[in-house]
Amino acid sequence: MELKTADYRVKVGKTVKLKGWKTDEKGGMNKKEGKAWARVLADELAGWQERLYAENKQSLLIVLQARDAGGKDGTVKHVIGAFNPNGVRIANFKVPSEEELAHDFLWRIHAQTPKKGMIAVFNRSHYEDVLVTRVHDMIDDRTAGQRLDHIRNFESLLTDSGTRVLKFYLHVSKDEQEERLQDRLDNPDKLWKFNAGDLEERALWDQYTKVYEEALTTSTAAAPWYVIPADHKWFRNLLISQIILETLKDMNPQYPETDLNPEEIEID
Amino acid sequence: MELKTADYRVKVGKTVKLKGWKTDEKGGMNKKEGKAWARVLADELAGWQERLYAENKQSLLIVLQARDAGGKDGTVKHVIGAFNPNGVRIANFKVPSEEELAHDFLWRIHAQTPKKGMIAVFNRSHYEDVLVTRVHDMIDDRTAGQRLDHIRNFESLLTDSGTRVLKFYLHVSKDEQEERLQDRLDNPDKLWKFNAGDLEERALWDQYTKVYEEALTTSTAAAPWYVIPADHKWFRNLLISQIILETLKDMNPQYPETDLNPEEIEID
Repeated sequence: MELKTADYRVKVGKTVKLKGWKTDEKGGMNKKEGKAWARVLADELAGWQERLYAENKQSLLIVLQARDAGGKDGTVKHVIGAFNPNGVRIANFKVPSEEELAHDFLWRIHAQTPKKGMIAVFNRSHYEDVLVTRVHDMIDDRTAGQRLDHIRNFESLLTDSGTRVLKFYLHVSKDEQEERLQDRLDNPDKLWKFNAGDLEERALWDQYTKVYEEALTTSTAAAPWYVIPADHKWFRNLLISQIILETLKDMNPQYPETDLNPEEIEID
Repeated sequence: MELKTADYRVKVGKTVKLKGWKTDEKGGMNKKEGKAWARVLADELAGWQERLYAENKQSLLIVLQARDAGGKDGTVKHVIGAFNPNGVRIANFKVPSEEELAHDFLWRIHAQTPKKGMIAVFNRSHYEDVLVTRVHDMIDDRTAGQRLDHIRNFESLLTDSGTRVLKFYLHVSKDEQEERLQDRLDNPDKLWKFNAGDLEERALWDQYTKVYEEALTTSTAAAPWYVIPADHKWFRNLLISQIILETLKDMNPQYPETDLNPEEIEID
């Protein structure tokens, strides 16, 4: 059983048509197998994170983007939950505040990038500034094009500075979104997650598809986009876990060298 | 089997003599039982945290203080790891930066307090400003007394504003600390955690005891100190989990009311 993660990566310089990307992939497994495998990966992830933290030289930025109910929060809970909280910071980007709007759109984003040894998770991100703003005509095509360039430059600043960037688009079908929104309505303990505004965004499904496809053109070798089939939560968690694990292994953090000679030290 | 958590709480207005507080308590359990129980509590903690997050009205601040190798990081990993990372922020307070020192000692602390719905964990805290500074004669008795007053006022600002404060002193014996430091020296994967400076602090064991005892006088009903027997990691985790759980239950967060009538909403 093997997941070929490269199949889900957006190739550099290629245009993506989301229609051609599956939302209900299961990688030839059933849910039970997938969950068991994810548990194994969780332990490996925690081990590599400890090395990253101990090494204190590199960092990892994980960007989560999705339509409403696409599974961002669930990914944080189930995938990021594997890590030692000491080494993780989650940034939830909501509608910008007045002070944030008084700066360029990357100002608040930059402030949340991970320091050495850390993993930062962006639950929504700077990509909202070329998604929701675009669909609602808050910016024109020219500004959107400029912003995409600024994003490329910004991410290359990060990747040149020891931060690896992984960008996940959680790809759900329109039917699956309906089911999840309905589930929130049907379940008193989930009703608080329901936002009437989500229906307005849902009505703009095709417009979002178009701007997501443009955002995905910012995939680079050092800051790739992955389109994650996300109708099955367990498969989404498994695939993302696998991609993060491969990335950490490739970063190959090492326990730091020390000048200490442990044998010479005596504890009174 | 029941843990009487009140036994570990520092009574308001009482002076503590740490000598009289056990470090190797096991609560009448063995390790296997304790760990099994902690797993049950972890699920309950996650459930209450979701309510806290959903309610979005109150917040919880958890302060962790201990001598070196006292178990702060382990507590974060094993206890705080039970929570959904989306609703948690860990603040690690190191030696203050130049900019931080250019402000009052609570400035950098205040910036990290939890917003509504969130749990913040201080891995070290404002208490260092009346501990390490005191032992190394960086401040005099008068300043230390003033700082303790400022801390009381600051914490009452928080508790009056919807933030519950829980303060844990992880109480280990001098022998247990020796064992843990030696373990770091003996284990190549743990050597990075060893800090030669820890031995200098260890030599000041009794001085630290004295200033900790003073810090513990800031225990109040709304911001209590707990002295956690911490020689046994599993018992430390279990007891802290139990105290946090009781606190969350006492805060009693509720899923928010909504004006929506779910039955009237149709998803296209």
